Amino acid sequence: MKIGIVGGTGDIGEGMAMRLAPRYEVIVGSREKEKAEQSCAASIDLLKKRGQTCFLKGVSNQEAIDGADIVILAIPFKHLAATIATLHGFENKIVVSPVNPMEKRDYFVFVPPPEGSAALLVKKMLPASARVCSAFNVIAANKWRALDEELHYAVPVCGDDVDAKRQVMEIVNSTSKLQAFDGGPLAVSAMVESLTPLLLNIARYNKMRDVGIQFK
Amino acid sequence: MKIGIVGGTGDIGEGMAMRLAPRYEVIVGSREKEKAEQSCAASIDLLKKRGQTCFLKGVSNQEAIDGADIVILAIPFKHLAATIATLHGFENKIVVSPVNPMEKRDYFVFVPPPEGSAALLVKKMLPASARVCSAFNVIAANKWRALDEELHYAVPVCGDDVDAKRQVMEIVNSTSKLQAFDGGPLAVSAMVESLTPLLLNIARYNKMRDVGIQFK
Repeated sequence: MKIGIVGGTGDIGEGMAMRLAPRYEVIVGSREKEKAEQSCAASIDLLKKRGQTCFLKGVSNQEAIDGADIVILAIPFKHLAATIATLHGFENKIVVSPVNPMEKRDYFVFVPPPEGSAALLVKKMLPASARVCSAFNVIAANKWRALDEELHYAVPVCGDDVDAKRQVMEIVNSTSKLQAFDGGPLAVSAMVESLTPLLLNIARYNKMRDVGIQFK
Repeated sequence: MKIGIVGGTGDIGEGMAMRLAPRYEVIVGSREKEKAEQSCAASIDLLKKRGQTCFLKGVSNQEAIDGADIVILAIPFKHLAATIATLHGFENKIVVSPVNPMEKRDYFVFVPPPEGSAALLVKKMLPASARVCSAFNVIAANKWRALDEELHYAVPVCGDDVDAKRQVMEIVNSTSKLQAFDGGPLAVSAMVESLTPLLLNIARYNKMRDVGIQFK
């Protein structure tokens, strides 16, 4: 299974690529192909030193979509719509949104678009045959990158296509110690996306770092 | 410290009263005083059989407010505004909202009022001197009542009054194994209230029961 990461050299994308690459073919996209190539070279080097073989390839964002079965949109919300507008070829692909629409004021707050959530905005912008899921929303960038630490967190996955959701949940469950939970249809993805500003507030007001979530 | 529970004979209120009564003076309010008296007699009996002494007193909702330092509004969202409108005497009290505005469609969904959250609606309706916090949102009714089970859950507490929030967090931390987290100001209480429909969906779609949350 080939996973393309749009924005794969960003805060979230780079660590995510390293976590996924030992198990999947990961195609890392960036606005600048050269940046993706450099990022992948560094990641391959780092993983090699850890004794891990991997498949990582740096390309443009468009090539990351074209070459993949599953596309992860690792893009900050503020660039999401503009980035998607420059890309194509999402037909029949599974598209994963880990995007959280939020703002930092004195505190972090969930500020969804008129569609209700980032995932619903993605669904609206893509062709109808794209199978959109939300997943990986709650994993902090630092956690993705801290390869020495297992990720003991719950990951709710929302989506309307049963088969797509099952495949995304399998990827979640095969990544570190992440545990996928079916979060329901895409219509309720707002409640998952709002977890991240909540967790950032919890970290901030309780002097914690990179807070994750577990269901019990 | 005297805790009054408005709606103290309801799904959440009754179990909450039993959990709090061994440590605090708990004044259980109901629309029908007789119902509160009966509920308290049954609860006292149950706690006695468990070898626990307690202070529980059944009164009307208004008497529960008048006699308490801290008032917990254990009311379903659909009755919240109408119930508050019939009550008075909230001046200078700490008022705790565990209320979650949500609807059950094919799934559970967070449907906040125009104010942004149930807690913000409460704040708007009460006199300015009432010190409103949101807390206890995420504990399922069945969990409150299952006295043999410790509650190993995180409880985010939101509020704008530092002293009130500290007192509410102390009550949370002294209840079973609940762990209070400062969730930030009341302005972000929507993100806490939306946890409950999220957890109900997680339970539903993953065949779990009474799902709670932990931060890690």
